[in-house]
Amino acid sequence: MGLVVQKYGGSSVADAEGIKRVAKRIVEAKKNGNQVVVVVSAMGDTTDELIDLAEQVSPMPAGREFDMLLTAGERISMALLAMAIKNLGHEAQSFTGSQAGVITDSVHNKARIIDVTPGRIRESLDKGNIAIVAGFQGVSQDKKDITTLGRGGSDTTAVALAAALDAEVCEIYTDVDGVFTADPRVVKKAKKIDWISFEDMLELAASGSKVLLHRCVEYARRYNIPIHVRSSFSGLQGTWVSNEPIGDKKVEQAIISGVAHDTSEAKITVVGVPDKPGEAAAIFRTIADAEINIDMVVQNVSAAATGLTDISFTLPKTEGRKAIDALEKNRSGIGFDSLRYDDQIGKISLVGAGMKTNPGVTASFFEALSDAGVNIELISTSEIRISVVTRADDVPEAVRAVHTAFGLDSDTDEAVVYGGTGR
Amino acid sequence: MGLVVQKYGGSSVADAEGIKRVAKRIVEAKKNGNQVVVVVSAMGDTTDELIDLAEQVSPMPAGREFDMLLTAGERISMALLAMAIKNLGHEAQSFTGSQAGVITDSVHNKARIIDVTPGRIRESLDKGNIAIVAGFQGVSQDKKDITTLGRGGSDTTAVALAAALDAEVCEIYTDVDGVFTADPRVVKKAKKIDWISFEDMLELAASGSKVLLHRCVEYARRYNIPIHVRSSFSGLQGTWVSNEPIGDKKVEQAIISGVAHDTSEAKITVVGVPDKPGEAAAIFRTIADAEINIDMVVQNVSAAATGLTDISFTLPKTEGRKAIDALEKNRSGIGFDSLRYDDQIGKISLVGAGMKTNPGVTASFFEALSDAGVNIELISTSEIRISVVTRADDVPEAVRAVHTAFGLDSDTDEAVVYGGTGR
Repeated sequence: MGLVVQKYGGSSVADAEGIKRVAKRIVEAKKNGNQVVVVVSAMGDTTDELIDLAEQVSPMPAGREFDMLLTAGERISMALLAMAIKNLGHEAQSFTGSQAGVITDSVHNKARIIDVTPGRIRESLDKGNIAIVAGFQGVSQDKKDITTLGRGGSDTTAVALAAALDAEVCEIYTDVDGVFTADPRVVKKAKKIDWISFEDMLELAASGSKVLLHRCVEYARRYNIPIHVRSSFSGLQGTWVSNEPIGDKKVEQAIISGVAHDTSEAKITVVGVPDKPGEAAAIFRTIADAEINIDMVVQNVSAAATGLTDISFTLPKTEGRKAIDALEKNRSGIGFDSLRYDDQIGKISLVGAGMKTNPGVTASFFEALSDAGVNIELISTSEIRISVVTRADDVPEAVRAVHTAFGLDSDTDEAVVYGGTGR
Repeated sequence: MGLVVQKYGGSSVADAEGIKRVAKRIVEAKKNGNQVVVVVSAMGDTTDELIDLAEQVSPMPAGREFDMLLTAGERISMALLAMAIKNLGHEAQSFTGSQAGVITDSVHNKARIIDVTPGRIRESLDKGNIAIVAGFQGVSQDKKDITTLGRGGSDTTAVALAAALDAEVCEIYTDVDGVFTADPRVVKKAKKIDWISFEDMLELAASGSKVLLHRCVEYARRYNIPIHVRSSFSGLQGTWVSNEPIGDKKVEQAIISGVAHDTSEAKITVVGVPDKPGEAAAIFRTIADAEINIDMVVQNVSAAATGLTDISFTLPKTEGRKAIDALEKNRSGIGFDSLRYDDQIGKISLVGAGMKTNPGVTASFFEALSDAGVNIELISTSEIRISVVTRADDVPEAVRAVHTAFGLDSDTDEAVVYGGTGR
């Protein structure tokens, strides 16, 4: 008998019908002889509605109270799900993050899991129950305050519980059939990936693929927990994410796993920086002190005549204002002429472990972009990824061109998106 | 500096505006030099909406999960209230029933408080914070499961915390200006009562007055916590409920405190019961075994010719079906001819400690009913209360007649109901 952790996002439990549908699927897994732990997000738009209420009473909701507010959403969905399962004649018990032993640090709104002590879950499973756990939430180490894990927190809860319970698999149910070779909304001929390695999945997540968050994949890789991403609507086999292909499946590692894109970043160019040691350090220390994460960095070739150079970097658009303010404030300390801010950029990334041993990949990538008439502004590479920055408008065409050039196109339009996006 | 416990019902915090209004009132109390603990119910119709969702997924929601579900409502309101207070520049922290140390037995959906250990509340107050506590909920003695206190639970939470913290007063904010000499919706000339003893308030609550629940008043009397029932909308002085009039107020105990009525009961008559010892016991053992509480009981004078008698009793309408079923099932054991069920009855009660020393009260009460042409079906009395059962249709007229006869009418129509009814 195996132990399975299943996670259902908000779109899968958006209403009473959704909850009953999910309950049936959970009972199926139980009937197949598994011990079943279910992690559930808040119903549909609940979280957004709570955030809206918070903003109505206070322009700057405080961390501790904000977490207390938001975690109400999962208490509702988990209790309803447990009731729906009981109504199908199976025993179920719901547990808050705290009751499930999800111990975090005390950083409200984006706490990190530091330990999982699932004694009560284990106990409940041993009694033959299905255990339902609130996603996205934990309790601070001193056991006093409720915390939330931030964006994608429920996926992380699921993987962390799967690791602590030594589960055979962590099934992430969502509103698409799995991980695709490109965003199906952009590339109609995107193909569902049957299996992908943790490494490639990490690169895809870091490059804009939204099906799984980087943090969750990282956790799964660290504890070697296979993830099965699949649809709660269709019942089809989805995408396995693991170190090696699972079971008797002979899946060959593809040279290229997929094409990801991201239009959530902006580019800042620091113009007229003296070309001497320590200048770049001064700029990026300023940015780091403002607690802003940057992505790509490029330093232009210095113009010998002036002794000045330009430094460009990309960062989340949401951090743009803060970065500009921090740099302006430190202008005299750093020494630069001006700042340029550009939020009309997009990033296209090609990911695949195969590029390590296939030297032609980079050339083919640039040729595909060139043939599509797409101009490249920045380039950055890792061992298994090439990313370029282009105009935001060029992104859809660029993604399709690269997808076709690497033979990733499906014969059919197979991708279906079933609902909204859960948390 | 005094310690004040304030309780706000669901109608007072029905929306963001209500929450902000209540926040201002709380901050006023704090500015007046008090330590302030606030107990809050779920917003407006939240609880009903959650119950509705539960019924959609399961016809018989289970106790533990149902409590987990319902307690989400107070988490939302308490977190929002804490945010709203912070936004006014004061420090506030919210606490679940569990965090506030509200320890209960394990009877889900109607748990009883068995201890209150408000260490964290005290700590928070000592730091200068306003403490916001979720009403209606606690944690089972083994600290494992969330429980709810049943109807009127938030009032009980407030009184229990006031007792544990040795508060000067427990202020119950509601949508009326206080306790009235009769239901203002029935008697336009009902007067607000300035002060009422615990004893009289207990009898009013037991007789159908809905402003304070019996259980909450009982708790307050046991620990001698003065209650101040008042409106969160008007800011007027309300009704004080205590052993003795508070402070320098010279309030004379009225002979009659008020007239209560109740149309939520039904009457069952067991017809043709053999008039011999043990018959009544057999009937009421049957009812008790079905866990039904009864109110009034009357046995008719036996007709000597037949050796048979009739026994009537009243009980909540909601228990009617269950009682009939239990009696029918045990018909041969008890021995009776037939059952009559009547849910068109009403109860009118006159309450006042003064009737102990004023022998004319009973006579005046019956005269008033007779003058109003109201027929009496059952009578029951305590030391400080007389209750009669009449036709339900006669109740409004009967209440007005009695109210006038005992000189309780106000010169003006002073009663205002501001909103819905909170939990």
